[in-house]
Amino acid sequence: MKEKKIIIVGGGFGGLAAAKSLGRKKGVQVTLIDRRNYHLFQPLLYQVAMAGLSPAEIAAPIRGLLSEYKNIEVLLGNVSKVNPLKKQVKVGDKTISYDYLILACGAKHSYFGNEDWECRAPGLKTLEQATEIRRRVLTAFEMAEKEEDPVSRKRLLTFVVVGGGPTGVELAGAIGEISRFTLSKDFRRIDPNQARVVLVEAGTRILAGFSEKTSKRAARSLEKIGVQIWTSSPVSNITDEGIQINEEFFYAKTVLWAAGVKPSSLNNFLDGNLDKQGRIAVSDDLSLAHDQSTFVIGDQASFLDESGLPLPGLAPVATQQGTHAAKNILADLADKPRSKFQYLDKGQMATIGRRSAVLEVGSVKLSGTIAWYAWLLVHIYYLIGFRNKLFVLIQWAWHYLTYSRGSRLIVHKEWRSYLEKGSEESL
Amino acid sequence: MKEKKIIIVGGGFGGLAAAKSLGRKKGVQVTLIDRRNYHLFQPLLYQVAMAGLSPAEIAAPIRGLLSEYKNIEVLLGNVSKVNPLKKQVKVGDKTISYDYLILACGAKHSYFGNEDWECRAPGLKTLEQATEIRRRVLTAFEMAEKEEDPVSRKRLLTFVVVGGGPTGVELAGAIGEISRFTLSKDFRRIDPNQARVVLVEAGTRILAGFSEKTSKRAARSLEKIGVQIWTSSPVSNITDEGIQINEEFFYAKTVLWAAGVKPSSLNNFLDGNLDKQGRIAVSDDLSLAHDQSTFVIGDQASFLDESGLPLPGLAPVATQQGTHAAKNILADLADKPRSKFQYLDKGQMATIGRRSAVLEVGSVKLSGTIAWYAWLLVHIYYLIGFRNKLFVLIQWAWHYLTYSRGSRLIVHKEWRSYLEKGSEESL
Repeated sequence: MKEKKIIIVGGGFGGLAAAKSLGRKKGVQVTLIDRRNYHLFQPLLYQVAMAGLSPAEIAAPIRGLLSEYKNIEVLLGNVSKVNPLKKQVKVGDKTISYDYLILACGAKHSYFGNEDWECRAPGLKTLEQATEIRRRVLTAFEMAEKEEDPVSRKRLLTFVVVGGGPTGVELAGAIGEISRFTLSKDFRRIDPNQARVVLVEAGTRILAGFSEKTSKRAARSLEKIGVQIWTSSPVSNITDEGIQINEEFFYAKTVLWAAGVKPSSLNNFLDGNLDKQGRIAVSDDLSLAHDQSTFVIGDQASFLDESGLPLPGLAPVATQQGTHAAKNILADLADKPRSKFQYLDKGQMATIGRRSAVLEVGSVKLSGTIAWYAWLLVHIYYLIGFRNKLFVLIQWAWHYLTYSRGSRLIVHKEWRSYLEKGSEESL
Repeated sequence: MKEKKIIIVGGGFGGLAAAKSLGRKKGVQVTLIDRRNYHLFQPLLYQVAMAGLSPAEIAAPIRGLLSEYKNIEVLLGNVSKVNPLKKQVKVGDKTISYDYLILACGAKHSYFGNEDWECRAPGLKTLEQATEIRRRVLTAFEMAEKEEDPVSRKRLLTFVVVGGGPTGVELAGAIGEISRFTLSKDFRRIDPNQARVVLVEAGTRILAGFSEKTSKRAARSLEKIGVQIWTSSPVSNITDEGIQINEEFFYAKTVLWAAGVKPSSLNNFLDGNLDKQGRIAVSDDLSLAHDQSTFVIGDQASFLDESGLPLPGLAPVATQQGTHAAKNILADLADKPRSKFQYLDKGQMATIGRRSAVLEVGSVKLSGTIAWYAWLLVHIYYLIGFRNKLFVLIQWAWHYLTYSRGSRLIVHKEWRSYLEKGSEESL
């Protein structure tokens, strides 16, 4: 039997799970393509943005993760095109053929047509964005320390997070905590307690994916560390000065975006129905209805559960789908029938600050310290690579004992000798 | 008695030592100005460039380091001008007055008038440069994996380090080691052993600051891990294709610069003699001959030892000078005479790779494993901040046991959503 060539695009949770399930299997040759050389543990990305963790602690080189599987090769490259009829993908200036394709490209931020807001309000999907957010938040405090005009100082110390989902809640909570505990003794002229942190949500409540009770508990925990929550507040404009919400204009130096996502544009090359957000509909075996050799998983796919709703864009969904797509390919090769994908819901959680989190598993709803410990355990457990588990555990223990955040570095975009140029925007 | 206002420019080894010596002292009010918000432990910067350590492990926020001293304030800003007659410095658009000034701005790379080489051959003085070098080295391996033409592949796998001082030796040794041990099992198509690493030195031997014997030992250790050493090889040009040395043109994708340094240009505002490299001559109390209220320390100053040679640009020199400058200011305030600065030479060392280093203390010359252990101990001991000590120690233990380098992340310069653009130069 000729070896089957399988291409996986994307080394996130879905792609990595698929690759591992195909590793060392007879009769398959796998190529995993990613434009990054590392797998990123996105659930902890906000901790990099908030100076709690270093990039290398939540990322692991894909090559290293898969080096033990001799039938898998990793290619660093940008897939610009998919041709399902010819069964080919274009990577850089090369064209590669496949027998099976697994698309697991994830999603990026969507500004709902206002893409020019991106400069003003960065989202949080990549390590570069995380260090940029870190730079902006820390620089705002530094500038406020030098500012003598109280009105300008207030604007510098105003932080707005747009979007009340788990990422928005985690970002707002962390800024509240940093300003109250971590930085308070480091500044001489400003009182970081004066920082205004506002979480803006267009819907009627934050954490809409959770129950109403949990949502209320989270709101109360946020308010305790000084975060104001503005619900029913759709953003209509973001400028260099601040943010427009309905008739109000609100001055703020720092605006962060955690509102919407859209999937990879590779979906446009495929034969299938895209939903409102751009996710492509997949059959219950995770392949496309008209193209059984193409599987689409994770944030890029719309898989409807029993209630007819698409599964949410969560790491466990992508991971389980990756494993399942691999299983169905192996079933094909063994001349066995494919099986239906069934999502095993392990619940969801969001952390709010020091010793505060919310958690829902089935009918169990927890909040506060116990949910926070559960959050720690789960994230350590699922963090990829033993080295990362160890280092993050030590970091967290350290933060917990000292309140300090060791990664408070303002790193600049420009790599060339900064000394001579020196004229960084505002310094 | 009126409080004396002391301005320290620079939060490196010298500036920090001066600040700590003035902390909690009666009658002095200190402002430390740096354009970075962190102190950088430069002796380990090459480990960030070589993916062994994360930026946050060798850097610590200056505010945090000095927060316990209530008489010290930290200002993030760029000092563009010094007026010794008016006793004022210009920071951003502000002018601040002082009674005493301590300049400790360090040095940056010098391309000896060929500043256009900088893009092609980055130096290693900042965290941004370190991550850029890491990106270039790792990307070269990734591109070689995709390259089918053997000639082009060879060029991609050729790494040239210019300058045979400690930094050049450490960089070349680390590239040799990475290619042989860390990456060898991760690639399918290239053999990272094929990597050519060349250390280019204009003088007749590497490590010119060490004894001839030590220099030879270091050369032999480098050759053992595949690094070629070209001495008497002055670089006459660096292009996108490679490097010109005398009549030879040598193709290389990656060229790194560790050759020369020049001190801060703030020296031009001062009344004193600059040496060939631009360092300003200081008296034996570390102040300027014609301006007793200005002290210049570290890489920015030329302090002649008994033999009439300037002290080298090493961390211990800067640290000892910082402490001494502070002591002399306090002596002034107590109406006591200033004392002469005396450098206590603690020796010098350079590491070459796994379990290999060279070390000289007085007449003691060590190399190999024992020197390497000494190197580890000394660097952990002097690393600033207990948190960094702990984390670096664990990282090193980890590397030692596994040969892995956890920070192998290719992080891009652009922070905005990379997904849509995608067209990174070469991918």
